[in-house]
Amino acid sequence: MARGLDPRALGEQGLIEAIRRRAGTPAAPWRLGIGDDAAILRPRSGYELVATTDTLAEAVHFRWSTTDARSLGQKALAVNLSDLGAMGARPLGFLLNLALPNELRPGCLDALLRGLLERAREARCPLVGGDTVAARAWVITITAFGEVPRGRALRRDAARAGDRLMVTGALGGAALGLALLERGFGATPGARPYVRRQLRPRPPWKAGPRLLRRGWSRAAIDISDGLSRDLAHLLRASALAADVHLERLPLARGLRAHARRLGLDPEELALHGGEDYELLFALPPDAPSAAVCARRLGCRVTEFGCLRPGRTLRFLRNGRPVPIEIRGFDHFKAFSDSSDK
Amino acid sequence: MARGLDPRALGEQGLIEAIRRRAGTPAAPWRLGIGDDAAILRPRSGYELVATTDTLAEAVHFRWSTTDARSLGQKALAVNLSDLGAMGARPLGFLLNLALPNELRPGCLDALLRGLLERAREARCPLVGGDTVAARAWVITITAFGEVPRGRALRRDAARAGDRLMVTGALGGAALGLALLERGFGATPGARPYVRRQLRPRPPWKAGPRLLRRGWSRAAIDISDGLSRDLAHLLRASALAADVHLERLPLARGLRAHARRLGLDPEELALHGGEDYELLFALPPDAPSAAVCARRLGCRVTEFGCLRPGRTLRFLRNGRPVPIEIRGFDHFKAFSDSSDK
Repeated sequence: MARGLDPRALGEQGLIEAIRRRAGTPAAPWRLGIGDDAAILRPRSGYELVATTDTLAEAVHFRWSTTDARSLGQKALAVNLSDLGAMGARPLGFLLNLALPNELRPGCLDALLRGLLERAREARCPLVGGDTVAARAWVITITAFGEVPRGRALRRDAARAGDRLMVTGALGGAALGLALLERGFGATPGARPYVRRQLRPRPPWKAGPRLLRRGWSRAAIDISDGLSRDLAHLLRASALAADVHLERLPLARGLRAHARRLGLDPEELALHGGEDYELLFALPPDAPSAAVCARRLGCRVTEFGCLRPGRTLRFLRNGRPVPIEIRGFDHFKAFSDSSDK
Repeated sequence: MARGLDPRALGEQGLIEAIRRRAGTPAAPWRLGIGDDAAILRPRSGYELVATTDTLAEAVHFRWSTTDARSLGQKALAVNLSDLGAMGARPLGFLLNLALPNELRPGCLDALLRGLLERAREARCPLVGGDTVAARAWVITITAFGEVPRGRALRRDAARAGDRLMVTGALGGAALGLALLERGFGATPGARPYVRRQLRPRPPWKAGPRLLRRGWSRAAIDISDGLSRDLAHLLRASALAADVHLERLPLARGLRAHARRLGLDPEELALHGGEDYELLFALPPDAPSAAVCARRLGCRVTEFGCLRPGRTLRFLRNGRPVPIEIRGFDHFKAFSDSSDK
C-alpha cells in the first residue's frame, strides 16, 4: 500500500475490486453498482433521467506539471455535476472510464480516486460502474446521471424573448488561474484563489434543481467554454437574440488588477475565458429579482442582459454597442487565450 | 465533403452538428438527444434502467494497420450491446465520447460514424449525446442504456448450484482472427470468417432479453475476456464452483485446422482467447434443453458444464480432471496468448 494502487500488480480485476471497495455499495435508486456487465437503476416514478458525459485528456485538458491527481479527480466529477445542474437535475450517480498509461506515478491513482469520491460524497452521487483500460496517455471519461421531474428539465431551447439573462457567481477567475499557472506564477501571493478555481472548480450544482423547483426558469446552460460561446449556444437553440451589458458582468474579485499585471484584458477573461462552471439562466420578466434569486439559490446571482427576437448577440457598454467576437474554447480550432489549454 | 468530416475545419460545434444530423432525432423514450448539456430519457414504468460502458484505445484494443474505421465503429457499439444483452436488457440508446488525435486520415471519422450508426439502427439504439475532444491518440468510449422489467435483470450473482452452464454460438473464432491478423495472414484464403469475427463481432444481443422474457435463466455474463475468465467472474459473484466438460465446448468451425497451422492450441483459443462476445448463462435443472433454448433464442446453444457448491473451477476431459489455469485478457498484466492484443 506504500506505493498505492498499482494496476500492473493488481491486474484489471484486482483494480476493479479495489475501486469497488473504495466506492462502496450505492443506495437506492441503484439496484446494482460495480461488478456486473452493467449498473441497474430503478427510476422514481414521475421523474425523467438525465445523462451527461465529459472527457478530460492529458496534455489537452490537464497537464501533470500544473495539476495534482486529487484535484483532477475532483474536477472530473465537478464538470459533470455542472452539466446536471444546468438541466436542473439532482445527481444520482456516475460511471468512470479510465484510460491509464503503463507508467503511473506511485499514489497517483489513489489520489485521483480520493478526489473523485470526495466530490461524489458531497454531491451524493455514487460511483456505480465504469471501465479501466491501458492506453498511451491519461483519458478520463465520466458519465453522470441525474433526475428531474417529468417534462421540467431546464433546456437550452426553452428561453423566450423578454427573459432576463442571469449568471451565478463571478467570471474570469478560472481563466486567470490557468494563465497564472502557465506563466509559472501559480505559487505567487494572491494567485491561490484563481488557481484553485481552475484546478478544483466548485460548480453551484444545486442552483439548477432549486431554480426548477421554484418554477422560475425554463432555460439554462453551464459556462464551460466561456460566457460568450455558451450564451451563443443558448441563443442558437432558442432562436433568439441577446443584449449583454458589459459593465454588469460579475468579474471575479481582484481580476482586474491581476489580469493587468499579466497584460491580459479582464473583460476578455470573463467573456471568453471558460471553465467558470457557473450557471447561466433565462428568467421570465415576472420572475423575482436577482437578489431574491440569490437568496433562494444560495449563491451570488447577477442580471447582465436580456433576450429579444432576432439572431444576433449584441454587447453594450453603458448602452452603446461594442464589437466583440464570440470566442471561447474549441477543441479543434485555435481560439485566442484559451486555445492553449 | 470530399475529405469527409474534418474536426479542424468544422470546429467542435460544427462537428457536433454534423454528428447530430447523421444520428437524427431519437424517438421515445428519449425526450432530448444531442445538443444540450445532457440527454433526457423518460423511463417506462415497470422497468429498470441498465447502463454499461466500454472504452477502446488505439494501440491497445485496435491498430489502424489491422482494422478499418467502419469496422471499428461497428465493434465499439457491438461490445456494449453485448453487455446490455448479458443483463437481459433491450437497448435504448448510447452516448459517444471521442478523443481524436489532431491528424485524422480523410474520411476516417465518417467511416467510423457510418459503422456505429449502422449497428445503432439494426439494434434500434440511437446515438443521444456524447463529447468530442482532442487527444494524443484515439480513445473511443461508449455508454449504452437498456431497459429490463423491474427486478428481473440477469445478474452474475444470481446463479445457483445445480444450474447447467450454457453458451451461445461458437468459441475461439475471434482469437484466431486476431492471431491471423497479427501474423500477416489476414487476407489468406479461409481467414475471412475469423478476421470478420475479430473486427466486426455480432453479439447475440437479443438472446439475453429473450431468455429473460421466457423466465428460464437468472444469471448471465458475456464472453469478452475469454470463457475461463468470464466464467470465473460468474462463479466469484455467485459464490459457486463449476465443472466444465472440455469436449463439449462449441469450437468455431474450422478452428482446429487453422489453429494447428499457426501452431496454436484450438482449445486454448476457445477457453482463453476472448472477444467472442457470446452469452454464457446458467439454466436451472427444470429449464428446457439446449435444443429448445436454441430455437427460442434464435442462435446456437450448447450445454458445456454445470454449477455446484464450492469455490473451484474444474475442467474435465471425458470425465477426468485436467489442470488448466484461468487465463484471458487483462489490461494490466501479461497473460499468455492474449497479452499482445
